[in-house]
Amino acid sequence: MRRFVADKTRNLIRRASTWSPTCPVSPRPHHPPSLLSQPTSPPFSSSSPSHPSSITSPLRFLTAAALHPLSFPASPNSMASNYSTTPVTLQSVNPKVLKCEYAVRGEIVTLAQKLEQDLKQNPDSHPFDEVLALCDHPAILDRSETQGLFSADAIERAFQILDQIPGRATGAYSHSQGIKGLRETIAAGIAERDGFPADPNDIFLTDGASPAVHMMMQLLIRSEKDGILCPIPQYPLYSASIALHGGTLVPYYLDEATGWGLEISELKKQLETAKSNGVCVRALVVINPGNPTGQVLAEDNQREIVEFCKNEGLVLLADEVYQENIYVPDKQFHSFKKVCRSMGYGEKNISLVSFQSVSKGYYGECGKRGGYMEVTGFSPEIREQIYKVASVNLCSNISGQILASLVMNPPKVGDESYESYTGEKDGILSSLAKRAKTLEDALNSLEGVTCNRAEGAMYLFPCIDLPHKAIKAAEAAKRAPDAFYAHRLLDATGVVVVPGSGFGQVPGTWHFRCTILPQEDRIPAIVSRLTEFHKKFMDEFRD
Amino acid sequence: MRRFVADKTRNLIRRASTWSPTCPVSPRPHHPPSLLSQPTSPPFSSSSPSHPSSITSPLRFLTAAALHPLSFPASPNSMASNYSTTPVTLQSVNPKVLKCEYAVRGEIVTLAQKLEQDLKQNPDSHPFDEVLALCDHPAILDRSETQGLFSADAIERAFQILDQIPGRATGAYSHSQGIKGLRETIAAGIAERDGFPADPNDIFLTDGASPAVHMMMQLLIRSEKDGILCPIPQYPLYSASIALHGGTLVPYYLDEATGWGLEISELKKQLETAKSNGVCVRALVVINPGNPTGQVLAEDNQREIVEFCKNEGLVLLADEVYQENIYVPDKQFHSFKKVCRSMGYGEKNISLVSFQSVSKGYYGECGKRGGYMEVTGFSPEIREQIYKVASVNLCSNISGQILASLVMNPPKVGDESYESYTGEKDGILSSLAKRAKTLEDALNSLEGVTCNRAEGAMYLFPCIDLPHKAIKAAEAAKRAPDAFYAHRLLDATGVVVVPGSGFGQVPGTWHFRCTILPQEDRIPAIVSRLTEFHKKFMDEFRD
Repeated sequence: MRRFVADKTRNLIRRASTWSPTCPVSPRPHHPPSLLSQPTSPPFSSSSPSHPSSITSPLRFLTAAALHPLSFPASPNSMASNYSTTPVTLQSVNPKVLKCEYAVRGEIVTLAQKLEQDLKQNPDSHPFDEVLALCDHPAILDRSETQGLFSADAIERAFQILDQIPGRATGAYSHSQGIKGLRETIAAGIAERDGFPADPNDIFLTDGASPAVHMMMQLLIRSEKDGILCPIPQYPLYSASIALHGGTLVPYYLDEATGWGLEISELKKQLETAKSNGVCVRALVVINPGNPTGQVLAEDNQREIVEFCKNEGLVLLADEVYQENIYVPDKQFHSFKKVCRSMGYGEKNISLVSFQSVSKGYYGECGKRGGYMEVTGFSPEIREQIYKVASVNLCSNISGQILASLVMNPPKVGDESYESYTGEKDGILSSLAKRAKTLEDALNSLEGVTCNRAEGAMYLFPCIDLPHKAIKAAEAAKRAPDAFYAHRLLDATGVVVVPGSGFGQVPGTWHFRCTILPQEDRIPAIVSRLTEFHKKFMDEFRD
Repeated sequence: MRRFVADKTRNLIRRASTWSPTCPVSPRPHHPPSLLSQPTSPPFSSSSPSHPSSITSPLRFLTAAALHPLSFPASPNSMASNYSTTPVTLQSVNPKVLKCEYAVRGEIVTLAQKLEQDLKQNPDSHPFDEVLALCDHPAILDRSETQGLFSADAIERAFQILDQIPGRATGAYSHSQGIKGLRETIAAGIAERDGFPADPNDIFLTDGASPAVHMMMQLLIRSEKDGILCPIPQYPLYSASIALHGGTLVPYYLDEATGWGLEISELKKQLETAKSNGVCVRALVVINPGNPTGQVLAEDNQREIVEFCKNEGLVLLADEVYQENIYVPDKQFHSFKKVCRSMGYGEKNISLVSFQSVSKGYYGECGKRGGYMEVTGFSPEIREQIYKVASVNLCSNISGQILASLVMNPPKVGDESYESYTGEKDGILSSLAKRAKTLEDALNSLEGVTCNRAEGAMYLFPCIDLPHKAIKAAEAAKRAPDAFYAHRLLDATGVVVVPGSGFGQVPGTWHFRCTILPQEDRIPAIVSRLTEFHKKFMDEFRD
């Protein structure tokens, strides 16, 4: 467990200690302004050109903004001409790859990485890392020096875990689903969380949640005629994965006015529209708590969603990686598995996949690439197919597997580490709650900015009412307006936010995503610089 | 570094300590015998039905044998009927997933895993694991106890590596290509190996070599009209990945009679045949040293291959994960990068991707999922696309990244660990060489069995001339003949081999792959059981 170092590259509001005047982005070709609303390649398949604009518009901006340097063909006179004899060109590369976009690792983040190079932070780690270190080098477990370095329960835990690993070796391939003993630990943790049983055979350990999402997309998407219902705004893993697998993203809008509410009527409307366009909708993605929107679903709402999936024959893909990140006393996390089971729906009634990760929560061990999916409600034949796809990469990394088991089975009362563990956990979560509130209030105090509260996850997704003059200036700069704002902010302050166009938003509205991860004592300075920048920006562009 | 525990699930000849009579495989449906030569789904795209049998035949067996339980639809009366209300069925699952097969994690291996459950081995690890443990828990680096537990150079190395990691945190996301300092170390290692410069920006660190292969297939394959030239026999990662990405595997045969020789005339012939069938061949896969065939390419042969790729405009995908595994004094590993550069071909002349892994060599840390690809000869625009695809999974696990850097920069003369490191390395490699020779001789002494020598990698791929009576018995048992032999062998002795039909072979010939990984002192017992089994098998079925 590390304080906030862990989520480094998502640490999207941060003071940069240096600012290089040689911006690596500017020499690249950009979309001409007209492309901002009329991208060359439609986000829906070319075989369904008749989609009403209410569906296609938000995705147009997914295509057009934020990441365009990654997907826009270079001019014939560019440096590509030196490679004229190499066999792979933008014309001959897989078009699904060209279509795929991924805002959180896009241009703004690339730029921020440059600025980060001098940043150094000291991790404060305890006790998960102890267990990992001991498992990686078990030769020290029996040595007397080890007791001076590691807590007793970490040593004990390492012994337990090593006993579960065939050969006691963290360097050996495991079962394709992950080490059985660790899956048993995770299943027990799920059962304890939900009050309903969980089966270790339903657990697939993966290198973070992302490969698990890809695996399910691979399973479900046969062609561009297969659609996946995704929230807008959405975490761009989903749009990227659907694009890479050649499917169609069927968007449903979260209602900003009701705190990013998920309305069943909206799901139904978009499902029907997709159907009438010949798209076979296979699954519904729900991100709870929401990324980038930070809302936490109410249990009643979750019941409606389950009912909808059951009635419409959709696989429910539940992204629950922020299940430990809840910041408001009136909201609680309920897993979809628990909701389904409490409604009496079991293995034969609903197909549900729940994604979990070691990258979020209060531990944030994202570099370890640990995660799992719990797969329920699929026939044995389909599970064999899932197993086979998992097998093609042999197994996920064992350290990540161990961490996933630790996350689902944290230190208990009586363990030597328990006090320090709960102290750190509570400290992190209450600090995150304070930061979320401070940032939310600061954003809401800005002219033309409104911001829903961050109930969970790690993000705020404020709406910014940009003046026409700013939108014109963005067009002249060949950027989406929110990307224009984000670039100006980064230039002026070193503060990094991800433009809303990378996540999707109601056409004509502009947002940005910022994390609540900066250290608490740095937030006042960030707020003051943001406020100052915003005032100047509005002074410059106010209509 | 662990002795042979590391390659556990590939440890395909091994004594099983228990044998469960409740075989989990037998109740599953199998291909009816007629399907063995006429699979329902042709391996080539349905749009090219006119392929001559010389191309399609070996792949028929890829489809028909070894893994068929994973891809054969269940009968309507099977247990699937209980799931009739769930949305994903074998009829609605992505057909590319159904088509994908992966022999080394197939039925025989599943069975062997059951047998392995009681096996325990003690890893003997030093000094890579020391570095990893120290990096995972850097809080102990400054403690006096640590000097009693870890060697001085391991501690020093951990400090160096942590200095390269932003935030000194192995639990934080890295740059999508991997930590820059580690890529610099790897590039330096490549330059030292080859005598030609390497660029850290060309390195993409990945969770083992498999995701890197998938990434390249994703980039190259647009539809079933795109073909990838692959050796037959081949490591089934390639057939699986091509199937998952919807492309066409264009096979070229290795010549068993000349020690699995790679003939340019064969490449040309198969390329022309594919072209005449409307397949656009995009890349050539070369596995050197060979898996499952164990041959090591001569440098002259490599030059011809490079010339062929350059002339035909093919991307050269060089699987070089066994580069440290050479067992014969008359052969040496030459990287394709070195061969290209020594021919005067640079960045602008040839598109080359070299795959490397921490899972092989003498270290065998396969559970750590570390690896990299070195990508050269692609235009900046295409490199951005590769970077984007890498970004979609954020980054590979940091422990695997660290190990990849250690593998390419092992302890040097003067380091405290150097003696024990070289001692262990030389011991492992010379022991593997002895095992390879012992097994090769034993196999060649069996009636009807011929086996090329294992020059490199970790495998032998003997040809077995099965009597007609055995082939008839296999048909009756609804198995490919080599799978039938492998099952009988496993049943009788607990020795696991992978049937050749999972790798592809000349039609009408039968092989199996066995590793040279069993511990040296157990090989005599394995040989004697194998010999005894084979004699009885031949007595039972001799024509």
